[in-house]
Amino acid sequence: MNNYAKYKGMMRKIADIQYSSAVLSWDQETYMPPKGANFRAQQLSTLAGIGHELATSKELGEILNALSSDASLSEKEKRNIKQSLKNYNDNLKYTTAFVEELSKTISETFQAWQKAKADNNFALYAPYLEKLVKLKREECKLLGTFAHPYDALLNQYEPGAKTADLELLFTDVRNQLVAFVKKIAAKPQNEDKFMFLHFDKTKQWEFGLDLLKQMGYDFEGGRQDASSHPFTTNFSSQDVRVTTRVNEKDINEMIWSCIHEGGHALYEQGLPSEEYGLPSGEYVSLGIHESQSRLWENNVGRSLGYWKGNFSKLTKAFPDNFKSVSFEDFYKAMNIVKPSLIRTSADELTYHFHVLIRFEIEKALIEGTIEVNDLSSYWNSKYKEYLGLDVPSDSKGVLQDIHWSHGSFGYFPTYSLGSFYAAQFFAQAKKEIKGLESEIEKGNMKPLLDWLREKVHKHGKYYSAEELCISITGEKLNFKYFMDYATNKYTQLYNL
Amino acid sequence: MNNYAKYKGMMRKIADIQYSSAVLSWDQETYMPPKGANFRAQQLSTLAGIGHELATSKELGEILNALSSDASLSEKEKRNIKQSLKNYNDNLKYTTAFVEELSKTISETFQAWQKAKADNNFALYAPYLEKLVKLKREECKLLGTFAHPYDALLNQYEPGAKTADLELLFTDVRNQLVAFVKKIAAKPQNEDKFMFLHFDKTKQWEFGLDLLKQMGYDFEGGRQDASSHPFTTNFSSQDVRVTTRVNEKDINEMIWSCIHEGGHALYEQGLPSEEYGLPSGEYVSLGIHESQSRLWENNVGRSLGYWKGNFSKLTKAFPDNFKSVSFEDFYKAMNIVKPSLIRTSADELTYHFHVLIRFEIEKALIEGTIEVNDLSSYWNSKYKEYLGLDVPSDSKGVLQDIHWSHGSFGYFPTYSLGSFYAAQFFAQAKKEIKGLESEIEKGNMKPLLDWLREKVHKHGKYYSAEELCISITGEKLNFKYFMDYATNKYTQLYNL
Repeated sequence: MNNYAKYKGMMRKIADIQYSSAVLSWDQETYMPPKGANFRAQQLSTLAGIGHELATSKELGEILNALSSDASLSEKEKRNIKQSLKNYNDNLKYTTAFVEELSKTISETFQAWQKAKADNNFALYAPYLEKLVKLKREECKLLGTFAHPYDALLNQYEPGAKTADLELLFTDVRNQLVAFVKKIAAKPQNEDKFMFLHFDKTKQWEFGLDLLKQMGYDFEGGRQDASSHPFTTNFSSQDVRVTTRVNEKDINEMIWSCIHEGGHALYEQGLPSEEYGLPSGEYVSLGIHESQSRLWENNVGRSLGYWKGNFSKLTKAFPDNFKSVSFEDFYKAMNIVKPSLIRTSADELTYHFHVLIRFEIEKALIEGTIEVNDLSSYWNSKYKEYLGLDVPSDSKGVLQDIHWSHGSFGYFPTYSLGSFYAAQFFAQAKKEIKGLESEIEKGNMKPLLDWLREKVHKHGKYYSAEELCISITGEKLNFKYFMDYATNKYTQLYNL
Repeated sequence: MNNYAKYKGMMRKIADIQYSSAVLSWDQETYMPPKGANFRAQQLSTLAGIGHELATSKELGEILNALSSDASLSEKEKRNIKQSLKNYNDNLKYTTAFVEELSKTISETFQAWQKAKADNNFALYAPYLEKLVKLKREECKLLGTFAHPYDALLNQYEPGAKTADLELLFTDVRNQLVAFVKKIAAKPQNEDKFMFLHFDKTKQWEFGLDLLKQMGYDFEGGRQDASSHPFTTNFSSQDVRVTTRVNEKDINEMIWSCIHEGGHALYEQGLPSEEYGLPSGEYVSLGIHESQSRLWENNVGRSLGYWKGNFSKLTKAFPDNFKSVSFEDFYKAMNIVKPSLIRTSADELTYHFHVLIRFEIEKALIEGTIEVNDLSSYWNSKYKEYLGLDVPSDSKGVLQDIHWSHGSFGYFPTYSLGSFYAAQFFAQAKKEIKGLESEIEKGNMKPLLDWLREKVHKHGKYYSAEELCISITGEKLNFKYFMDYATNKYTQLYNL
């Protein structure tokens, strides 16, 4: 066996462990009975430790170092080796003990968060989160020298991202989007009461499955289950699962989580399965991942054309609820812009204020400017500042998101990056795909999916996010595309 | 950390890997989409390999050997060490490559079996099974010298069991049970058509959950899902799951699989969770495990008293189906003795002929007296011989059971052992628990469960099966208790 084949074998084994962990995590959030939690935390910690040992083995290091100067490799193979060597060297910075402790702390913090959120009791969560933040600060130090310590965490989700660049980007968000949302707020608000009537759970579930099928999600290689926080996970590109949340009194939750997670899942299903375990079989970054979910959710799912066919299906499923609602009313209702407390149900414009707030908090928390005990009041003051809202309870405030309980600091900014990439990619798709919008109106998503497969999915991590963006659109990420999209759409919707 | 604490840590880690595999297997048989199968096989194989490496590590061997002469240990600790050292030495006989190949072959064979059974096409399955049988014969050789090569496999499920002893036991079955069943066959048969009307799936599901609750199954530490072959699995004693199969045209399947798997699950839920990963936290043997499921299924579940309360619940759930059925008719219907093709739906007497056939086939297959290609015709001739039946198709014949596709040879005999232990234990329980039968009539299963917890569950693997049987009943396994139970019950039911 040559070195590259050995490398592939080792990477597959590491992936086997990571995907096994993913199965255990999926189960933890969908079906696991409550008493299973403690031993599950221990099992995940053991798997994390073993995965880490394999990912930092001397043998892997030797092979990677040998292959890094092997001129006979193809360009794709070279890029795989470069990427894997970088990951290897990053992984070496962690001890197995640290990885196991982090994994165990995350499981415990996640459980504490669930209880704290249900009971609206931040104090139940705080001691666990404190421990986790301490570990995260330690992690920044382990990972070495960055311009800003938070960069180390950002890079785990968005390789190459810098705190300084994000500050510039969010300055644009503040300057341009805040003003634009104010213009909207000055106009009369549209009606959306009919989205909050009673919607039968089973019918909603069936409707969501139909939306996923229409997008091209392959149910032979995936499935949808219920969880308290919708997510997509995968155990190979042949087993990509989504979860959703169905609220009987709000049809929005099911619709947007199905389309959003469906977008993520299409990306994973489009990755080359023969590259299992290698960078060339992986997504580029969370920002690019999110570009796929946001493109489907917002640029497609919240467009007039998408609902031309789908609205009649919806009215067939819920005839009473929509009997006096016109197609135009429905389009307006799903695009109401209005400051609100909960990120996941925010509109596509004010959404970025939610991200901005979390970005500022995380930065301060990692810097050590604020501590876990300050979180609730800091959070509430930011919501007042950016969204003009008083936060009535921690459950609707600082406890709302799962991310910190999972140890995911540096993750939130990728949501905004995703929306901005999506706008830029979709503008390009409209240029390149003949009759794209009329195909979407007909419910034919294949041309768009084929384009995304070709432009994004099939490349795995061959390109960096920046390279990919340039290869598709001819330029780096540019906030202008998002502002153009927003301006065109909402000027018309609100008669600005 | 002292050696015993180190030993515990290592055993917990091995258990973490084994239970992670169990989660992946549970998912494979309940929720996994079809395309996920190939990579799942690979993931299970990797976990099996890692588990094997840990279970055969030099470090573990050194600690076990040191502890095996440590006089300061408690009796329980000494027994743990003795058992673990035996397992360690057995595991050393396997190479990691063999374990990984076995795991991968099993996953592939399982998939082939599923297709073959659905298509009634043994040929789809045969080449995989051949490979697996070859590996199993190799395994017998690896495991060393036994009086009979099949002993090596039997011992994996029933430590201490011998082919020669089973032959004696099954001679009793042949001599006594065959004659008794013939006496029954000469009598007029009871009616059970009403068990095969239409039974709504959801109502059946709910009814099954009620039966489990009544038995004392803890849903905070478990759950029930659907699978094509009912099973119990656990990922600690705090997460013990059952599956069932609901047939709209046969209420028997749901009832007996719920009670049967419930019995297994109660055993696992009763094992001491603080002994996680150690012999003292494990079940004794599959025969003892099966004694728990059979005791609940047959000695309790098929008794007149059990249905005194539960029959009225059943008639409430399905009023039309049972409107002209008396409680006595129902009791007779669930205890019909009649030769049939499918083991899992056999009555509690002819059941043992199904096991006997499999025992004879496995022995011959491992000896090499027959080959996989002979299986179908050999099977059919045995069904003619013992049950007087012509097998119409392989799906209803040699393809009916999951076991061989899982590589489980030597497993079937434990089913009969379980029934025989159950009869012996239940006879003792009736002596020791005051008013046991009237408590069961009232639907109060707690006295029985408490007795089982005290006599069986809480001890883990402290005792061997034989020791446990003696400690509970004062004597070794004795087929007489089963024959007494059968004779009393069916003499009355069939007016013999």
